Amino acid sequence: MGLIPAITYLFLMFTFIPFMFLKYGGDNSTETHNSNGFKGLFPNSKLSTYLSCLLSLESMILLGLLDDLFDIRWRHKFFLPSIASIPMLIVYYIHFNKTSVLIPRFVAKRLPDYIISENSINLGWLYYVYMGSVSIFCPNSVNILAGINGLEVGQTIVITVLLLMNDFYYLVVGAGGNVDAYSIHMFSVCFLIPFLGISTSLLKYNWFPSKVFVGDTWCYFSGMVFAVVGISGHFAKTLMLFFIPQIINFIYSAPQLFGIIDCPRHRLPKFNKDDGLLYNSYTEYEGEGNKPLNLKLYPIMNFLEKLKLISLVKKQKGDKEIIIKSSNLTIINLTIIWTGPIREDKLCLTIMILQFAVGLTMLILRHSLAPMLFGFDNSWTMLNRFY
Amino acid sequence: MGLIPAITYLFLMFTFIPFMFLKYGGDNSTETHNSNGFKGLFPNSKLSTYLSCLLSLESMILLGLLDDLFDIRWRHKFFLPSIASIPMLIVYYIHFNKTSVLIPRFVAKRLPDYIISENSINLGWLYYVYMGSVSIFCPNSVNILAGINGLEVGQTIVITVLLLMNDFYYLVVGAGGNVDAYSIHMFSVCFLIPFLGISTSLLKYNWFPSKVFVGDTWCYFSGMVFAVVGISGHFAKTLMLFFIPQIINFIYSAPQLFGIIDCPRHRLPKFNKDDGLLYNSYTEYEGEGNKPLNLKLYPIMNFLEKLKLISLVKKQKGDKEIIIKSSNLTIINLTIIWTGPIREDKLCLTIMILQFAVGLTMLILRHSLAPMLFGFDNSWTMLNRFY
Repeated sequence: MGLIPAITYLFLMFTFIPFMFLKYGGDNSTETHNSNGFKGLFPNSKLSTYLSCLLSLESMILLGLLDDLFDIRWRHKFFLPSIASIPMLIVYYIHFNKTSVLIPRFVAKRLPDYIISENSINLGWLYYVYMGSVSIFCPNSVNILAGINGLEVGQTIVITVLLLMNDFYYLVVGAGGNVDAYSIHMFSVCFLIPFLGISTSLLKYNWFPSKVFVGDTWCYFSGMVFAVVGISGHFAKTLMLFFIPQIINFIYSAPQLFGIIDCPRHRLPKFNKDDGLLYNSYTEYEGEGNKPLNLKLYPIMNFLEKLKLISLVKKQKGDKEIIIKSSNLTIINLTIIWTGPIREDKLCLTIMILQFAVGLTMLILRHSLAPMLFGFDNSWTMLNRFY
Repeated sequence: MGLIPAITYLFLMFTFIPFMFLKYGGDNSTETHNSNGFKGLFPNSKLSTYLSCLLSLESMILLGLLDDLFDIRWRHKFFLPSIASIPMLIVYYIHFNKTSVLIPRFVAKRLPDYIISENSINLGWLYYVYMGSVSIFCPNSVNILAGINGLEVGQTIVITVLLLMNDFYYLVVGAGGNVDAYSIHMFSVCFLIPFLGISTSLLKYNWFPSKVFVGDTWCYFSGMVFAVVGISGHFAKTLMLFFIPQIINFIYSAPQLFGIIDCPRHRLPKFNKDDGLLYNSYTEYEGEGNKPLNLKLYPIMNFLEKLKLISLVKKQKGDKEIIIKSSNLTIINLTIIWTGPIREDKLCLTIMILQFAVGLTMLILRHSLAPMLFGFDNSWTMLNRFY
């Protein structure tokens, strides 16, 4: 039932429209957007961007709801977010159709001159594929790091807080009187603050012991909020930085997802009802119906175990050890390996703190390293070229 | 499952955006909408109106779906469309905020001067109540005239065709080179032609014998399409004319709806499986659990029967007749009184033809009488004042 907060959010955003755009159109004239004075929060031309973002979000809710109802197959639902992002991309196409991305200076030097202009590369229609991928990536990332009470909602709160910190950095420090950069990050703040509000109230009910389960609708919706903010604010790359824990989770899961190691139906930690703690869940290689582990993988598994990146259960058989169980490859299980058996809410909190720490590091790196890589801090210099 | 065509329609409309708005924004500049040349179908400032209309439609689909899923109570779901119309009304408020309506000249003469200007009256915030009522009226009207195969979809097709005829009247005859009137009716045509397409294909499956049942989602969605077109095109009054059969149905049903006459749970015609025809259904006044008919209503009922507006079944009891059954008060039953027992598809066709005949008469009256009542044909003279 992530549906209720999602719909609440939408109608909240509807009612924001007059406050955000009123001062421009208030004097009964459709020609007001011609004046260049900065009267309201946003010019009227931003209104269609805003509306297209809401359309994308609402489409995502509708599709997520259908998914919850009819259980669409995995390989189909993977692409649902790209359908929902169509309205936003189309309006982006009409309004800006600016398809350049900045690339690091040292890469730019190695590329031929005719595709490079001012450190950026024009991707053309590939840019829309890139944006479509961002909108597929975000919802599915949120969806993949899920399964224990509070984590689906908790991780979105962490990302929201990080994005807000990034926005406020520009609003307070970086914008330097530049109206466009100010406006673009104010736009993203307008999306994120209400979202933070509904997320925290949802977390109250979703926190262990959970009264409400959020379902796919919420995962898709919250992921789409990030995608919308990232795409409309032209900071998709910064957005990716805050998804690093999810990316690590995906890479860590890859051997099981792509079938190198056997993957059981559920990979969630096991709940032990005697002490109320969560224990690692294991993939078993012995017994009926279980595929044995490929012998070539033994040295890798043992090496990973030494790095504390996997937990193995071994058995002496004849003169050599064989691995009969290995912990499932998700970031949730990995955290349990480090902490030992743990209560569900503490586990969730630990993962959230880890995620926040990684994100904060990335945020600091982004504003200290980016000027070196790109030749300038693209806080507003880049944005100038978009408007 | 009216959901599938509704969603198809939405995504069709998304993909129309570039074709309708491209020529304006195609040269990578956000400032293009300042030029006054009529380059594309619509200026970019129309884009936000268009997007807000789509938002309203999508909200309606979402709410209609929730209604189908959770069976919201009647008195709550009556107001669902007004919630869905919020985005459209808000954008209307920002862009135009023109709240005058034309009133007939003979009424205007009797009103004090200070509220009248140029034959129109400024309703202020009441105008938004009026528009909200239109959006409540249309979906519920479609919903009330329902129950036999094909009728829900059939009636929307009839209204769509009538609206298209009205639009083409302006496009071909009435606009007279005026760009704004042309644009406003082209806008409505852009909504209606795709809608006609999905309705007819849905009708193919919904026609007797029906393979697909449409549910509330479709009724709300199609009603909202009309409301959106009427409100954004400033011809809500003309729209009302095409809903006259639904209004008559409501007035005719009123005695049962408001409890003057007993109202059974279902008032659909009875299907007789021996000859495959539909017969009138009756409200019974005799027998256990049935409230007898109020004696004061006897003369009215007998009068209505003489006008062939109701069908009564009487019984001799002592020296006077008593009414033991009367046909249910819906336009569907009324049609059966006129035609006698009839097959379901023929009944549906008869009602559609009646509806079309009434609508066509209204359309002709509207363009011949309106100039007399309002002092001029408001085909484009009125619209001029809106832009």
